[in-house]
Amino acid sequence: MKAYQELSAQELQVEQECLYQGFLEFKARGLKLNMARGKPSSEQLDLSMPILDAINSFQAMNDSEGTDTRNYGGLTGIKEARELMAQIMEVPASNTIVLGNSSLNIMYDTVARSMTNGVMGSTPWCKLDKVRFLCPAPGYDRHFAVTENFGIELITIPMTSEGPDMDLVTQYVENDDSVKGIWCVPKYSNPQGITYSEETVRRFAALEPAAADFRIYWDNAYAVHDFVEPGDVLLSLKEACDAAGNPDIWYMFASTSKITFAGSGISALASSQSNLAEITKQMAFQTIGPDKINQLRHVAFLRDIDGVRAHMKKQAALLAPRFSTVLSILDEQLGDLGVGEWTHPKGGYFISFDGLANTAKRTVALAKEAGVTLTGAGATYPYGNDPLDRNIRIAPTYPSVDELAIACQLFTICARIAATEALLAQQ
Amino acid sequence: MKAYQELSAQELQVEQECLYQGFLEFKARGLKLNMARGKPSSEQLDLSMPILDAINSFQAMNDSEGTDTRNYGGLTGIKEARELMAQIMEVPASNTIVLGNSSLNIMYDTVARSMTNGVMGSTPWCKLDKVRFLCPAPGYDRHFAVTENFGIELITIPMTSEGPDMDLVTQYVENDDSVKGIWCVPKYSNPQGITYSEETVRRFAALEPAAADFRIYWDNAYAVHDFVEPGDVLLSLKEACDAAGNPDIWYMFASTSKITFAGSGISALASSQSNLAEITKQMAFQTIGPDKINQLRHVAFLRDIDGVRAHMKKQAALLAPRFSTVLSILDEQLGDLGVGEWTHPKGGYFISFDGLANTAKRTVALAKEAGVTLTGAGATYPYGNDPLDRNIRIAPTYPSVDELAIACQLFTICARIAATEALLAQQ
Repeated sequence: MKAYQELSAQELQVEQECLYQGFLEFKARGLKLNMARGKPSSEQLDLSMPILDAINSFQAMNDSEGTDTRNYGGLTGIKEARELMAQIMEVPASNTIVLGNSSLNIMYDTVARSMTNGVMGSTPWCKLDKVRFLCPAPGYDRHFAVTENFGIELITIPMTSEGPDMDLVTQYVENDDSVKGIWCVPKYSNPQGITYSEETVRRFAALEPAAADFRIYWDNAYAVHDFVEPGDVLLSLKEACDAAGNPDIWYMFASTSKITFAGSGISALASSQSNLAEITKQMAFQTIGPDKINQLRHVAFLRDIDGVRAHMKKQAALLAPRFSTVLSILDEQLGDLGVGEWTHPKGGYFISFDGLANTAKRTVALAKEAGVTLTGAGATYPYGNDPLDRNIRIAPTYPSVDELAIACQLFTICARIAATEALLAQQ
Repeated sequence: MKAYQELSAQELQVEQECLYQGFLEFKARGLKLNMARGKPSSEQLDLSMPILDAINSFQAMNDSEGTDTRNYGGLTGIKEARELMAQIMEVPASNTIVLGNSSLNIMYDTVARSMTNGVMGSTPWCKLDKVRFLCPAPGYDRHFAVTENFGIELITIPMTSEGPDMDLVTQYVENDDSVKGIWCVPKYSNPQGITYSEETVRRFAALEPAAADFRIYWDNAYAVHDFVEPGDVLLSLKEACDAAGNPDIWYMFASTSKITFAGSGISALASSQSNLAEITKQMAFQTIGPDKINQLRHVAFLRDIDGVRAHMKKQAALLAPRFSTVLSILDEQLGDLGVGEWTHPKGGYFISFDGLANTAKRTVALAKEAGVTLTGAGATYPYGNDPLDRNIRIAPTYPSVDELAIACQLFTICARIAATEALLAQQ
């Protein structure tokens, strides 16, 4: 079939009517499917059921340093959990603290503390007239929402196949002292699945920020989440920053939410020891310490990085067919039509679809009408505003392969209808 | 023996030398005991070991509403955990949300959100020139520290045997719109073990604050923590506030930290539905949800308020002898000497000791010198400053009865030495 751009208005109309028939057939099936959020499937969660037996009442409850994990204390997490999370994040354990069940919560708290108490002695951001954050987009809506919630101005930075546009990042960071941070998902980025190149990581490390309290928010959410072998390799930001003489510029976040249980995992913050010293001093006002028993449980189950990798191979066996189902349908149904492009990630939780301009909202609305929920169009951009209305995040992890095949067939019909409408409107 | 106030200088000196001999004997024993923090003992923690088996891999992991507790979601906690914590707090489940492992964390976050985002549409506190909090004292050092950390000015409110001085509270709250909150531990107050009277609770409920964003921070930490039967009864703040037409004035906090495991419990926030609606809207930026599996685990173990009460009776059997050991030694050794007064609580975690003026720091220092750590003198007052240097918080829960007896004997010697010094200095 010819690309849509090469069709006449009449041909487009015929195509549209034909597609609409197909759409109505789907709609008549009364589907109720969801490709909206990056949730693990039940099968993935089943893989971690043995963690529930990893700690039981016959067990000694002291950690490796002799602390009773059942009692108060241990603000920075137990030693063996710090070692485990450090291996996942590829940083030293001495640069790592392990906290509660949500790395998003750590990120939010890190911004919140900067708002109220500043960063290493800087003016609290809430006392400043303007605070800005760089937001590589398409990106993760919950990142953008954290900063928006605090009244921080969001600046869109275009993504390239190597990561954020580093010329633009450098220009902002080095010349604008109201720019205090940048949100990054450096490996298998949400939603594109892009892993930042070595050059990109090195340019991050070499930044000379105008603001002393500028930090890189490095959300290493998918550090061990490959489903194609060999997976992508991410250069160590910590090592690059140390080599560049910029040891305090980075915060790194990770969790086991997509390794064990999504709501009951453990999360970690890594940074320079100076940053951690200041952060833990402030954290001491907030809590007496994290759930150490759940940390002990995770170490008992996952053991070490080899245990994590073996476990993630089982996850990959569940994820790979889901991603290939979606990708093969996109390739088959949209391959030569010129109605969009999409990414082919080797890991992570998402596929990013860019349709023609002015089609994303319409595609999502059509899918919704036929019973398939997608991430809201625009969600991947600051303020929920995708200027070209092109990007849709596809989350293939939660539904079964059969459900995905149906949902994705419908998706391609919706994207094609939206494309015909957009092209006809131009004529 | 005569009261110290009736002794001559010479008699005081003889007494002091004699006490000092006793002190040196203790010191020679090389003790290493701790009566500083309100930590449960190992025996108390042992009572909850079966909770570790309450959830296992053979179990269905859905909550009572059919949600898979292993996955993301459920911002306000699972229904059955809300019902359990609501029973403990004596409020409706519809006014209760259940979160992570630390009620201190909920309190901190509640103040933090008020700082950055205001309260129900009010100006964020960080934008105001002055924000003040009322701090009934002696009180809980970690409460005071939360607000101090945010630069909030702390105002000391004297405690009476019925709770905070309500004349002073009313005067501040109704006339000063920079007063935004008051810290309360209404049942078995920390450190005095005082339970607020009905009159006090009703006066709280009837407050007409100058500031629309004033809230009562009601830390119901010891709601079910009686160790003498019958325990104290606390009037329902919620019902009193509703009756007074003041439904939004209260936040209530509680946790299972001193019911199950101190670091691995569940915590709750109760308030009006309007307050909760606003709070959960903001919380959605911070986290996708709490650890629902740990909530399920707690419900499986504690079941309901009857289960909680049965469990707390076992705790009481461990706590009662500890408290009576301390109290009988204080009564025996200090009873008629006029060197101090102390409380006789029926529950909670502390005994409050008020020595003569200018003796608390010295008493704590002497005890430390002989190997017994007490809560720092002054810690029970805002800014760590006890104006009369009188109050010492005694925490009898963690050591064994034998250790407590030794530590407390030493404590009475230290308090007596400090009293002789203070009286001699006056002469």
